[in-house]
Amino acid sequence: MTVNPFSSELPEDYDKTMKEFGISPITPALRKRLPDHHFIRRGIIFGHRDLDKILDARDKKKPFAIMTGIKPSGVYHLGNKLVIDQLVYFQNMGAKVYFAVADVETYHVSGQSLEESEKTAVDNVADLLALGLKEDNYYYRQSTELDVLLLGHLYSKNVTYNMLKAIYGEHPMGHYDAALIQVGDILYPQMKKFGGPKPVIVPVGLDQDPHMRLTRDIAAKQGLIPPSSTYNKMMRSLSGNAKMSKSEPKGIITLNDDEKSARKKIMSCLTGGRATIEEQKKLGGQPEICVNYEMFMYLFEPSDAKLKERFDACKKGALLCGQCKGECADRLVAFLKDHQEKKKKMLPKAKKILGL
Amino acid sequence: MTVNPFSSELPEDYDKTMKEFGISPITPALRKRLPDHHFIRRGIIFGHRDLDKILDARDKKKPFAIMTGIKPSGVYHLGNKLVIDQLVYFQNMGAKVYFAVADVETYHVSGQSLEESEKTAVDNVADLLALGLKEDNYYYRQSTELDVLLLGHLYSKNVTYNMLKAIYGEHPMGHYDAALIQVGDILYPQMKKFGGPKPVIVPVGLDQDPHMRLTRDIAAKQGLIPPSSTYNKMMRSLSGNAKMSKSEPKGIITLNDDEKSARKKIMSCLTGGRATIEEQKKLGGQPEICVNYEMFMYLFEPSDAKLKERFDACKKGALLCGQCKGECADRLVAFLKDHQEKKKKMLPKAKKILGL
Repeated sequence: MTVNPFSSELPEDYDKTMKEFGISPITPALRKRLPDHHFIRRGIIFGHRDLDKILDARDKKKPFAIMTGIKPSGVYHLGNKLVIDQLVYFQNMGAKVYFAVADVETYHVSGQSLEESEKTAVDNVADLLALGLKEDNYYYRQSTELDVLLLGHLYSKNVTYNMLKAIYGEHPMGHYDAALIQVGDILYPQMKKFGGPKPVIVPVGLDQDPHMRLTRDIAAKQGLIPPSSTYNKMMRSLSGNAKMSKSEPKGIITLNDDEKSARKKIMSCLTGGRATIEEQKKLGGQPEICVNYEMFMYLFEPSDAKLKERFDACKKGALLCGQCKGECADRLVAFLKDHQEKKKKMLPKAKKILGL
Repeated sequence: MTVNPFSSELPEDYDKTMKEFGISPITPALRKRLPDHHFIRRGIIFGHRDLDKILDARDKKKPFAIMTGIKPSGVYHLGNKLVIDQLVYFQNMGAKVYFAVADVETYHVSGQSLEESEKTAVDNVADLLALGLKEDNYYYRQSTELDVLLLGHLYSKNVTYNMLKAIYGEHPMGHYDAALIQVGDILYPQMKKFGGPKPVIVPVGLDQDPHMRLTRDIAAKQGLIPPSSTYNKMMRSLSGNAKMSKSEPKGIITLNDDEKSARKKIMSCLTGGRATIEEQKKLGGQPEICVNYEMFMYLFEPSDAKLKERFDACKKGALLCGQCKGECADRLVAFLKDHQEKKKKMLPKAKKILGL
């Protein structure tokens, strides 16, 4: 168990996976080239492939892009916000953002109809705009983007069943199809109509690395630049069981949650507290396993000094869970109120952007 | 060996395949319901699935369609004309024609670029128009038809690798992908924007029946009407080796061939002639194996009585190959001249129809 308040060391399984897949750590040299951000300082973004290509393009004032997409299978939650904040980070560095609403993937993987995805997509894109993504970025739905659908079809020429099985394991054809459309998404910013080959960065979790490996392989065959990627740690669900995900609805805080519901959720989240107040005062808390502390670290405490203060106070038993969660809830509620106000104004723009 | 001049009996392997796959013969009762045509009388269209559904729709004045497509991998030849003539036959019966230029399939299966297919497609569609297909039918290229590309993606949800392997054998993913786009093509006329579910007939060769089985299976899962199909014999190449196909360029007569080349090809085609003129006068010819006779039967002799005369004269040794081929060449050249003149006028229309 690490006592570093920023938890920049990685769990052993991360480390092993990185070595196995050829993902590089964010070295001090690279860190110096990156704009300052708590994502970087705290090791939330912990690994990359070819991130230097992006920074080279920036330094040479050549075009570069960031690409991502999301399944429109529900309202965005704090885990999604973490990725969107990265988009904004790279956008502010000069990247054009390409954003895919992965409704075809949602159809294959979650069985949700395209019509249902349409509704959710509007809500999602309003979030993106409210969180700081510019309107003149490129947003699209897979199901209505002819060129991406076409790329998804053409790229199946470059693969065999055995190759897909080796990368993803055995799945229905629809899952492989979704993977190939996703390759189309990732390579889309390099198409002629967008100015041709360029460095493109894709922020992912380690679990999505198979998509990157497949895409890099196909990019090389297509005469395109294999995309760069960053790897970020993933926020845990409120129960601390796994990453925050729509598959555990009670474990997430959505960007649409109202104050009452948000406070209630924070109050019931997993902490590093002891069985009794007495015990906690004596032994101190365990911020390393605390979901509440993670909220401060990932999202709600921009100051490293203040974060360290909180960590130390918890360790000493001076800061008890009730107070700490109350403070987290206050920040969360302030964020949600502000966000929801901005978002409301963005809904008509989101509709327009999606051609609806 | 049959002595029926119309060869309406089928080779044993056709018969076996039909039984295996559940393809029905064209019965006398069905023949009565069909408009008169030498395709029907001579057994060139020899089998079907659900052809009665098409005739029922016609009788009840309900909408029905004929769907087909072709890989734009080369100039059309006489074997293609045989299929196009069937389209015209059903068009004249009241069917709306849907025609797919299968450029994505060509990319997967023949490795031809979409740009190259674009050029060929214009030439092909000009042929269609010159052969009597109406301009207000629905022509499209797979690569630019968003809804078909989307259907191709969505239908992969309904299949597994094992299912595709069982139907088609082991292939690169691109071939399966092409098959799924083709399912999209075949079911496309039943989409909402075209008025929803309706009987659709697809003219095919027996070798393409796997596509029909896959499509019928998926149609049922999608709440659409499983498409009907007709099965036609296929013209042989000039060498008589196999069906007339772009894969044997010397064995085909294209719709663009000039007089000199067309005559030369006919003069060198496989006939049922004997080693010497003396022998042929004595034993008679063998029209049953003669490619030249097949030309008359499939395309150039509308009169059954005259076809029978030719057959009998050959059998008796009264009509020799040189004369017979000369007569065939005359008809072919007359057709080509007339066709090419019409076609030339259709080229701008073809471009327009394809959105080029």
